[in-house]
Amino acid sequence: MTIAYDGVEFAGWQVQPGRRTIQGELERAFLKFAGVPVKAHGSSRTDQGVHAAALVAHVELTRKWPPLVMLKALNAYLPADIRILKVKPVAADFHARRSAKAKEYRYFIWNAEIMPPWLRMYRVHIKKPLDIVAMRKAAACLVGRHDFAAFTANPRREVKSTVRTLIKLEIKASGKEVVVIARGDGFLYKMVRGLVGFLLRVGAGELTPADARKILCSRERTSRVPTAPPEGLFLWRVFY
Amino acid sequence: MTIAYDGVEFAGWQVQPGRRTIQGELERAFLKFAGVPVKAHGSSRTDQGVHAAALVAHVELTRKWPPLVMLKALNAYLPADIRILKVKPVAADFHARRSAKAKEYRYFIWNAEIMPPWLRMYRVHIKKPLDIVAMRKAAACLVGRHDFAAFTANPRREVKSTVRTLIKLEIKASGKEVVVIARGDGFLYKMVRGLVGFLLRVGAGELTPADARKILCSRERTSRVPTAPPEGLFLWRVFY
Repeated sequence: MTIAYDGVEFAGWQVQPGRRTIQGELERAFLKFAGVPVKAHGSSRTDQGVHAAALVAHVELTRKWPPLVMLKALNAYLPADIRILKVKPVAADFHARRSAKAKEYRYFIWNAEIMPPWLRMYRVHIKKPLDIVAMRKAAACLVGRHDFAAFTANPRREVKSTVRTLIKLEIKASGKEVVVIARGDGFLYKMVRGLVGFLLRVGAGELTPADARKILCSRERTSRVPTAPPEGLFLWRVFY
Repeated sequence: MTIAYDGVEFAGWQVQPGRRTIQGELERAFLKFAGVPVKAHGSSRTDQGVHAAALVAHVELTRKWPPLVMLKALNAYLPADIRILKVKPVAADFHARRSAKAKEYRYFIWNAEIMPPWLRMYRVHIKKPLDIVAMRKAAACLVGRHDFAAFTANPRREVKSTVRTLIKLEIKASGKEVVVIARGDGFLYKMVRGLVGFLLRVGAGELTPADARKILCSRERTSRVPTAPPEGLFLWRVFY
């Protein structure tokens, strides 16, 4: 399934007792639909407040339903802040997370004195004009296969290696909207928000593009790399 | 002042005891700023859930502040779902509502099977493809100076006359987004939502463009003209 959600009222993807989560709401909808408990496996564990335009999740069912029937029924059971966009059958060995070859995140920034109120939960507000040229230079230094330990919030969190390949790190600017596009073979915990936090400091003139390489080589997360807030972040696409 | 707001968490513009309103929040910010109670006069009394991209409001102050100082201080006191976009001094006889020559509303429709979750509070969701050509024909019949009693929710509500001039009623369609643009010298209570409610029925094939004239001439609000929901509606511009 391809799923879109508005992260505002969720404590993130992963089921947590007593909290509203995307996985929890999906599994609740599946229980109503299939009549039996079903575990939903997601491509990514997005954090509290992070959105998704197209997260991929898979489930294992004991019988077959036509995809369109599933899509309509599940959307009827789901709250309006989660929508299933597509349902299709997959091979038995498909795994939404483990089969993913790459992921793309997009981080949306509103760069102007005043934030349109209806965008405040879907954009990060940066008042001072960002130096887009400097941000692009810094981004170019980060593309490639590197140890991203300096950009993850907790490098020792359940990972054997902190080496990842950043396939693309681009900054699009059009009018007041600035978008950071990050595509990689995988991302560490809070890594995208670390990359954006760093790029925003470069854009503000507090760090230089040359700091990108220094920080990478340090392999240590310090306060030079702040975690950008969750509301600007959308899981944009998963590649298989 | 020109003001933008996200109507989702407001009971509308006008102060009501025990409810969160835009006028109430503005007056509270002015009390903090000026140290004395200040009444805010708005160009329009938007309903619960209706948004504004550029409502105009005026206040009478006993002393002068530089507009930019006012703008920054008031925005600091206001909640994030109301933003003052512009402040400027006006003549003593200026009145935000009475001096307005025309107003423009825009009504946003998402016309596709699935609604992106983050737009659900700012668009009305219509799943079936709308007949835009029929809607445009119907809209053309409504432009001009007419008695719009059949399009207001309560024609006897504090108005001497239900005659208004609709300067423009246009439908823009681009991809899944359909926007109804309504500009007039004034609008009756819930008139824009009545016009849109009617146009949506025409778009769905339940009424024909020819019904526009029949309904106008009836001068009576019936169930043929439903009130479109508030979340799609934005007060877009006020002309002086």
